[in-house]
Amino acid sequence: MTLAQIGATAKGGVKRLTLTELDRQARDLVVSWLQDAGCEISIDDIGNVYAIRRAMAQQPTADAVAVGSHVDTQPSGGRFDGAYGVLAGVEVIRALNDAGVRTQKPVAVVIWTNEEGSRFTPVMMGSGVYANAFDAAFCLAQQDREGTQVSAALAHIGYLGSAPRPRFSAYFEPHIEQGPVLEREACTIGAVEGALGQRWFDLVVTGQDAHAGPTPIEMRRDALLAAAQLVLEVRRIALNSPHYARGTVGQMHVFPNSRNVIPGRVEFTVDFRNADDPTLNAMVAELHECIARIRSSDGVAIEINQVVYFPPCAFESGLVANIESFAQRRGLKTRRLASGAGHDAVYLARTCPSAMIFVPCEGGISHNEIENAQPFDIEAGGNVLLDCVLAEAGVAHTGVANAAASRSLTESQTESQTEPKPGPQTDRQAGPRP
Amino acid sequence: MTLAQIGATAKGGVKRLTLTELDRQARDLVVSWLQDAGCEISIDDIGNVYAIRRAMAQQPTADAVAVGSHVDTQPSGGRFDGAYGVLAGVEVIRALNDAGVRTQKPVAVVIWTNEEGSRFTPVMMGSGVYANAFDAAFCLAQQDREGTQVSAALAHIGYLGSAPRPRFSAYFEPHIEQGPVLEREACTIGAVEGALGQRWFDLVVTGQDAHAGPTPIEMRRDALLAAAQLVLEVRRIALNSPHYARGTVGQMHVFPNSRNVIPGRVEFTVDFRNADDPTLNAMVAELHECIARIRSSDGVAIEINQVVYFPPCAFESGLVANIESFAQRRGLKTRRLASGAGHDAVYLARTCPSAMIFVPCEGGISHNEIENAQPFDIEAGGNVLLDCVLAEAGVAHTGVANAAASRSLTESQTESQTEPKPGPQTDRQAGPRP
Repeated sequence: MTLAQIGATAKGGVKRLTLTELDRQARDLVVSWLQDAGCEISIDDIGNVYAIRRAMAQQPTADAVAVGSHVDTQPSGGRFDGAYGVLAGVEVIRALNDAGVRTQKPVAVVIWTNEEGSRFTPVMMGSGVYANAFDAAFCLAQQDREGTQVSAALAHIGYLGSAPRPRFSAYFEPHIEQGPVLEREACTIGAVEGALGQRWFDLVVTGQDAHAGPTPIEMRRDALLAAAQLVLEVRRIALNSPHYARGTVGQMHVFPNSRNVIPGRVEFTVDFRNADDPTLNAMVAELHECIARIRSSDGVAIEINQVVYFPPCAFESGLVANIESFAQRRGLKTRRLASGAGHDAVYLARTCPSAMIFVPCEGGISHNEIENAQPFDIEAGGNVLLDCVLAEAGVAHTGVANAAASRSLTESQTESQTEPKPGPQTDRQAGPRP
Repeated sequence: MTLAQIGATAKGGVKRLTLTELDRQARDLVVSWLQDAGCEISIDDIGNVYAIRRAMAQQPTADAVAVGSHVDTQPSGGRFDGAYGVLAGVEVIRALNDAGVRTQKPVAVVIWTNEEGSRFTPVMMGSGVYANAFDAAFCLAQQDREGTQVSAALAHIGYLGSAPRPRFSAYFEPHIEQGPVLEREACTIGAVEGALGQRWFDLVVTGQDAHAGPTPIEMRRDALLAAAQLVLEVRRIALNSPHYARGTVGQMHVFPNSRNVIPGRVEFTVDFRNADDPTLNAMVAELHECIARIRSSDGVAIEINQVVYFPPCAFESGLVANIESFAQRRGLKTRRLASGAGHDAVYLARTCPSAMIFVPCEGGISHNEIENAQPFDIEAGGNVLLDCVLAEAGVAHTGVANAAASRSLTESQTESQTEPKPGPQTDRQAGPRP
């Protein structure tokens, strides 16, 4: 909530666009907390901030176990998207410090630059550069609408670094779900299996515009009628496909868009998503079959062009299983799900074992000033994160550390009536990860 | 084609908005032709021009048989819409004069003010005032976008009259079809049974906008999905209804209209038309049933508001039968159809036996600069009009008149290879009208 004051909006949200003065203030605040917690700070050439708790690691030069996300927001953003993941990492570090826990591998917190992509494209810029999905030079030359380059904006706020990018042995990203599944099923912890692949299309239907009165139904070539059939087919295809299939027509423009003229042209979009690439391709093939059929039945032309392709991303199955097990051990209701949207973790998964922990958000609403999440869920996600980090980083073999490993984040701060007590502890260094 | 030069556009169309300087020029030209043809001209308080061939009528004070339409156009109008009806009337008068025909009742040509409604509302203003559908004072006070009143515009172009409105014993309006039926069926003459009743609606579907990625299909309240079902239902209802049923969704706006956001709100229109009022009401009732079903199945709110109602208009069955018979007698392929759009004849039908004669237009296209019609069809429509006018006005009992009554318009002007010869003539004063 302290971080949310930087860029706070009148409606209770946050407007903190990437690489602005507000982004600098947010980064400075989080960095000061991480420095106070004893982390070494470094900044790379795209402005990613790495805070590594090296001094309290038995193997200080080993690849760290990282927790990360972003502190930039949408223009009408909320308090939790991104910020939650970074601050959950800060709390893990503080909890370890409070309990005097030495880990085997270091633990790190990362702030990725420009996840939202609202001011500069591409989105997930910092993590994309980290994972070699984009060239740093390309990203540094990108401009916002005023013509300011990323490199200049980074330099201006003091976050144009030159440090090498550290390697990680594992990466965790806690995040609000941004969807309705956990809330509806009264689940606290989402064990995210992966991120959906995406194929986006632009379609144009061309028929013949004509007067609505004199033209009999059977003589029409109505572009909106063809488009409406496709809207329903997109839903049917998604509903009948496995692997978290989604199909959405979000945008439509009708021409000439006059109430007594049969539409001669309709432009619209299709957004298909699936956790499995062959299934995603099968959805597209089925759409093409529908297009061919409607073209012929309705006497219209239909063009389709793919404008975006993101392949599906599968998170590390062992880490996903751990999230589930640790949640169950804490008495938290959990389920597996897929991330429908992109996150920095999708790029990190190309470089090291990665996973995401979702917690519910109110009404599934995000990218909105009314975005909200409950303290109980926020805390529970942090506790499961702590479990996961300890399982990956390993606790150094001292009596103090083993005691700390069975505690919760909140025990080191305040006691909570509602906090579930952890179940019986086994050897947390091995953890349930196979 | 001479009239079409007034307001001619580069693309071959006409822009001659009502009560402009161009409308004045068009009116002046047609009035000069009608004066030259011996008609008495009078102008009423809404600018309707009445040209009556009284001197050549055996009963000069009897109610005239009128032919009429309009000379104003849409902003991107064509050469035939309206102009054809008025000029067909001029040609009937000239043909009668050329053949020296005296009729029993007078024959009249009428130019109705502001049929198109592009500059001033309501549409079909002049004929509407004539038929007491609107109050003259109300219409005279209407303003265009610049704040000019109808009364001022009429006075400015010299067409603010004060003559009484003459009564008519019958009214004919020839017009291009503005639809594709006659051309597709290779028919020359459309015997118009009436004009479709119209009910127009505004609909608003409210669901819940949400991210396309994280929201599973079965948890959505997608407003566009509901709207798409209604688009298809509107077509199904029209296709399954008798009496020239039409159903059109011409306008649609999607909110927030972003490709990766499930639409939370869709606004669209429905335009239902039918020649039979109970059937039109049944179509609306069926739409309401669909709305109730989709509201419940899709978890959306759907509002519907009627914004326009025009009752169906049936033309005089005897006159319609005459048009068919005269066309057949001239060897012209004919069929009955309905006018899907409104015309001045719809208001005239409230005051006297009325009918319309449709001729094909190219591609069914109208209200467009490329609007076109073939000389053969234009001429054929004029000849059937001549037959109809003579049948209603009656030919005065002189030898000369009877001879003239069996001639065609074109025989008095030029000979045409393609013109079908009239069939064997019976007593044209009685005609086939029952």
